[in-house]
Amino acid sequence: MRIAILAHEQFPDRAKTAVGVLRYGDHEVAAVLDRTLAGDHVAEYVPDVPDAPIVDSIDEVGAIDALLVGIAPIGGGFDETWRPDVRGALERGCDVVAGLHYFLADDDEFARLAAEHGADIRDLRRPPDDLTVSDGTASEVDADVVLTVGTDCSSGKMTTTFELLTAARERDIDAAVVPTGQTGIAVADYGIAVDRVVADFAAGAVERMVEERGDHDLLVVEGQGALCHPAYSGVTASILHGSMPDALVCCHVAGRDVVHGYEHVPIPPPGEYAEIYESVADPVSPTRVAGGALDTHGIDDDEAAREAVAEYSGAIDAPATDPVRFGVDHVLDAILE
Amino acid sequence: MRIAILAHEQFPDRAKTAVGVLRYGDHEVAAVLDRTLAGDHVAEYVPDVPDAPIVDSIDEVGAIDALLVGIAPIGGGFDETWRPDVRGALERGCDVVAGLHYFLADDDEFARLAAEHGADIRDLRRPPDDLTVSDGTASEVDADVVLTVGTDCSSGKMTTTFELLTAARERDIDAAVVPTGQTGIAVADYGIAVDRVVADFAAGAVERMVEERGDHDLLVVEGQGALCHPAYSGVTASILHGSMPDALVCCHVAGRDVVHGYEHVPIPPPGEYAEIYESVADPVSPTRVAGGALDTHGIDDDEAAREAVAEYSGAIDAPATDPVRFGVDHVLDAILE
Repeated sequence: MRIAILAHEQFPDRAKTAVGVLRYGDHEVAAVLDRTLAGDHVAEYVPDVPDAPIVDSIDEVGAIDALLVGIAPIGGGFDETWRPDVRGALERGCDVVAGLHYFLADDDEFARLAAEHGADIRDLRRPPDDLTVSDGTASEVDADVVLTVGTDCSSGKMTTTFELLTAARERDIDAAVVPTGQTGIAVADYGIAVDRVVADFAAGAVERMVEERGDHDLLVVEGQGALCHPAYSGVTASILHGSMPDALVCCHVAGRDVVHGYEHVPIPPPGEYAEIYESVADPVSPTRVAGGALDTHGIDDDEAAREAVAEYSGAIDAPATDPVRFGVDHVLDAILE
Repeated sequence: MRIAILAHEQFPDRAKTAVGVLRYGDHEVAAVLDRTLAGDHVAEYVPDVPDAPIVDSIDEVGAIDALLVGIAPIGGGFDETWRPDVRGALERGCDVVAGLHYFLADDDEFARLAAEHGADIRDLRRPPDDLTVSDGTASEVDADVVLTVGTDCSSGKMTTTFELLTAARERDIDAAVVPTGQTGIAVADYGIAVDRVVADFAAGAVERMVEERGDHDLLVVEGQGALCHPAYSGVTASILHGSMPDALVCCHVAGRDVVHGYEHVPIPPPGEYAEIYESVADPVSPTRVAGGALDTHGIDDDEAAREAVAEYSGAIDAPATDPVRFGVDHVLDAILE
């Protein structure tokens, strides 16, 4: 499938979905739309992914099958400056895929254009309408279940999830993911955006996915938020208890000590944070932090990054890595122990 | 307002909303509908509330303003055996008030009958449509904020909330509640059913209510679920972080050591549980378990109940009581310290 990715004014650092699909998806990316970087190329900003031009608007994109809205601002609203691009895509019969809280299919103009031009609108965050509460039974699946958790939002959970999946498959392990956010769903073409589910059913949604994919040997569940996050802790707790994981991989951004977007809220030291995760999980289903993932992109020097990883490993008392920089092999070993 | 309360086959022990409104509401209750107890009276089951007959169906109820659906099964579904009663109420122009996940106003027959007969349908769990994520700012309100938390669902949080409110008002303290579930909303005629909110916005919904009522001197926030509950921990975490409470009152049912409805899941010892609440709350907004509420209804002997309360108080290291049996005065003292 050939796609364009809308990421206006936020590529690459605040465009998680765009970068995730570039890195882990099997789509062919024809272009990224970012009006502030128009004329540049993806490769200038994101190494190790297929290159693509960055353009100003949908009008500069050739033939594509779909436009993916590859950004999701806090609150998940729709930015009206994106309207001409979505309109332009629908008018040429392209599908539009989006992970916003605001459902594009419910927008009168977009719905009308999609119908007129035979295009589909897929809102990745729209939950199934038959969800219910958790039964507390996810631990009964055959698969080893590992959950990525974190000390903050945007701390590498999605990346670590797909790096673990890739590494496991390279070892011929029968592995699958349980995506819980729009990027993972866009990459895997499967999943439920747990943050968009009715709060009472959030754990149940995760449990359903774990049980649907429970016949694999290894299941990597994508975590969301953080357990001590002022806004998203509910989603995190629901995933923790709904998935009943055998092991946790704790994700952290090197040097980050306050919550992103909530700078008045401190992040507990990673070692304490790992213990909080274990103590909250334990009564429902005992688990352990079996590995760590440290995002060291802010550290230029490889040796200094290795030292930061070693320090982080000591703090959480488990093997750690930077998945993008150093791979996940020994963390995967620790999970499989 | 004169009402009847539907509680078929579940009155009184599994009819939280029915009993809550009988005890704390200022409605006049004309009858309770429970086909298995028809012919009996409320006073035979629930002491210290105004008496009312228990009847078989809406046909045996005299003039009322509204029918309240006073039960909420796990999952919040609508039991089709209740349909004749709801239909009967609407056909005589009575309003219908319900706290189910299934919205009665969206039921075709009920919507049509309501329109035909000039009746209103109020679904207490329907959230406002303009909710958003938490800003992490609830701690800035003037009020002292106390949150009731628990070791399980149905462990006395709603009861404790309203007992604290009543006791505070008896001392001429300017106090208010933040109801977060259908019963509290039915009693207080205010509130948001946080379990029905999109998971990402659950903390934000609580924050909004705390800020709306933040000018009172004391705000008692009704907790939900439990932080180590296999299905509802997300709602609990959202309320904990969204309300940023100054103090917690931890509710527990004497002798209960497994999660209600999830008997394979143990409840941690109350002292440990109190520490888990504090450790998860702390990074966002430090708080303390300032008091405890022990439901001793399973203990016949008053002296044994007092001993159980004393033991519980020791376990959580804070003053405790059974709010219904012994009042909340010294727990309120501890909160106000």
